[in-house]
Amino acid sequence: MNNEIIYLDNNATTRTAPEVIEAMAPFFGDNYGNPSSVYRFGGAIRRRVERAREQVAALIGAEPDEIYFTSCGTESDNMALKGFFLEHGAGARLITSAVEHPAVRNTARFIKERGASLTELPVDGSGMIFEDAVDAHEINRNTLVSLMWANNETGVIFPIDKLAQAVKVRGGVFHTDAVQAAGKVVIDVKKTPVDMLALSGHKIHAPKGIGAAYFRAGTPVASLIHGGHQENGARAGTENVPYIIGLGCACELAAERLETENTRVRALRDRLENALLERCGGAKLNGCPENRLPNTVNISFENIEGESILLHLDESGIAAASGSACTTGSLEPSHVMMAMGIPYKYAHSSIRFSLSVYNTDSDIDRVIAVMPGIVDKLRELSPFI
Amino acid sequence: MNNEIIYLDNNATTRTAPEVIEAMAPFFGDNYGNPSSVYRFGGAIRRRVERAREQVAALIGAEPDEIYFTSCGTESDNMALKGFFLEHGAGARLITSAVEHPAVRNTARFIKERGASLTELPVDGSGMIFEDAVDAHEINRNTLVSLMWANNETGVIFPIDKLAQAVKVRGGVFHTDAVQAAGKVVIDVKKTPVDMLALSGHKIHAPKGIGAAYFRAGTPVASLIHGGHQENGARAGTENVPYIIGLGCACELAAERLETENTRVRALRDRLENALLERCGGAKLNGCPENRLPNTVNISFENIEGESILLHLDESGIAAASGSACTTGSLEPSHVMMAMGIPYKYAHSSIRFSLSVYNTDSDIDRVIAVMPGIVDKLRELSPFI
Repeated sequence: MNNEIIYLDNNATTRTAPEVIEAMAPFFGDNYGNPSSVYRFGGAIRRRVERAREQVAALIGAEPDEIYFTSCGTESDNMALKGFFLEHGAGARLITSAVEHPAVRNTARFIKERGASLTELPVDGSGMIFEDAVDAHEINRNTLVSLMWANNETGVIFPIDKLAQAVKVRGGVFHTDAVQAAGKVVIDVKKTPVDMLALSGHKIHAPKGIGAAYFRAGTPVASLIHGGHQENGARAGTENVPYIIGLGCACELAAERLETENTRVRALRDRLENALLERCGGAKLNGCPENRLPNTVNISFENIEGESILLHLDESGIAAASGSACTTGSLEPSHVMMAMGIPYKYAHSSIRFSLSVYNTDSDIDRVIAVMPGIVDKLRELSPFI
Repeated sequence: MNNEIIYLDNNATTRTAPEVIEAMAPFFGDNYGNPSSVYRFGGAIRRRVERAREQVAALIGAEPDEIYFTSCGTESDNMALKGFFLEHGAGARLITSAVEHPAVRNTARFIKERGASLTELPVDGSGMIFEDAVDAHEINRNTLVSLMWANNETGVIFPIDKLAQAVKVRGGVFHTDAVQAAGKVVIDVKKTPVDMLALSGHKIHAPKGIGAAYFRAGTPVASLIHGGHQENGARAGTENVPYIIGLGCACELAAERLETENTRVRALRDRLENALLERCGGAKLNGCPENRLPNTVNISFENIEGESILLHLDESGIAAASGSACTTGSLEPSHVMMAMGIPYKYAHSSIRFSLSVYNTDSDIDRVIAVMPGIVDKLRELSPFI
């Protein structure tokens, strides 16, 4: 059903890399043992799982025993935030931003309903957080600050180094949702003092249904899912061996491709961005131009419904996003656009193109060829004019 | 690494069925879209996910919208028990059994630590619960009774029909961990009044890393994992499309093979059981002989360490289990054997053989051929004599 699609929605999900599929295959086949088993059949699989843990750790500069496999980035975020709440109870103080992914945003709000305090830091019109954002807030050992490394909708990259340092010097705990950043920008927890970090497989060409949580050595790790002793007692449930091995492979690939992502992919993105801003009437870039993921561009087309643009792109065989795929079903402008203070006529019309290493020059040519026509056509029909 | 293994540890995990691998393959390949996306690429995948939901529902007589996909049976158990606790708070009253899987046992104990009350019902020497087990306990709308459909170590099947009815007539809520029962015995939630039920994929030839939770229509469903709106708002995180489709396929296969499981597999199990009890000195069956899963046999070999038997079986290319794979790492007798009141010299020496439709007559011949020699050899070395 997908032979000719031009896929530019890689911040929603990605193609599983052929190398990942190949790495997983034996573990769907003859190597199906339970890694917790005592017999050799299980032991060999356990060693392969530990190799994958090393590969994931390497992508972010962590030690293997600081990595816990989960079922997705959302679970990793939940594990970090709810674990902190379990430890600190209603005395917990959470600070996040107004543009967090729902995995952090809704989890923090759930925790607030249970009695903790919650502050959502604002961003400026470019989606950037203020560098001194945390300075005005009381921070102590009961404070968890959770700020995303990069935004899924705009690609804006927060200055996590500075923010984490500001929190750490004041005795707080720092978590970052790095689901969109991992594999696109350099992450090194040896240099950036984050205590906890969430990763997702399916944003970096592993399958949907696998994630990892980083907990710096010494940081309390609380279970979100109780049961058996898997993952050093922190995450019960028989290990998803094929996907764990797939995630390890994907992390190794991501590390190798970080340069491609920041040169070839960035160049494709820039070409797309420049052409659309130049050739489509009423087009306006969303998000801080300088501090952005190399693969993401988010543009509003004044007074046109983003959903309508998407449907026309779909007819041309192009997959993109408006708002965030996680929240479709609603036609409200995304909370990210709202927090940036984007006027309604722009907020409602935002389209995100997110690229991957699998995109080609001809993909970009095709989008540049069809978009101006779509915009012109829809603007003629627009009820706003 | 597994070409010649005789695999008799199917209660720990199972081979992924070739049909399941085939069903999943396209979704690792070109059909990698996000089912929450608006474009056609996503929509076609969403419809396939809903087809899988129908297949899972059909295995247990449920309606599709009563099925929620999770990352494993353990998560399904956690979702049910913690959801009930979230709704009822410290006034919640939990009743489970002394032989529950750690997924229920440790979750219930965690909830008890947070203020709820917990009763663990005893079993008799055959691992069977008393039919009137719940009658002596106060049960009302704040009471959740969670009893497993079948035990993972002994295969003993609880009379869930009667137990659930006894709980429902008194206004309580009933959950069952059906991870071991599904696909091996008939489950029909139209006839058995359970409110919640947990299923696991990797016990029925789907991969490790996928499960399902059944919530009867009208039963409150609380999120364990907050974030996006997936699974009708009940379970955030991008859907694990390949495994969901694999689980659907596995459930359909399991329904088709229920008769084979109860005839051919049962006959293999009976032949193995009879031969071991007859030919191995000091052998004693654990678990109620009449009410047992057709694929499971658990035998103790007086005064021999189960782990030693396992290692010798391993050398003969046979994979089995002692205690439960989820709790290896410990040499304590399993909590199931302890709850049954099995004397130490037997409890410590229990071996579980668990079969699947992939086992053959020659697998069983081989085990029958090697086991008496292993038992004799180890008994000579035993420090207990």
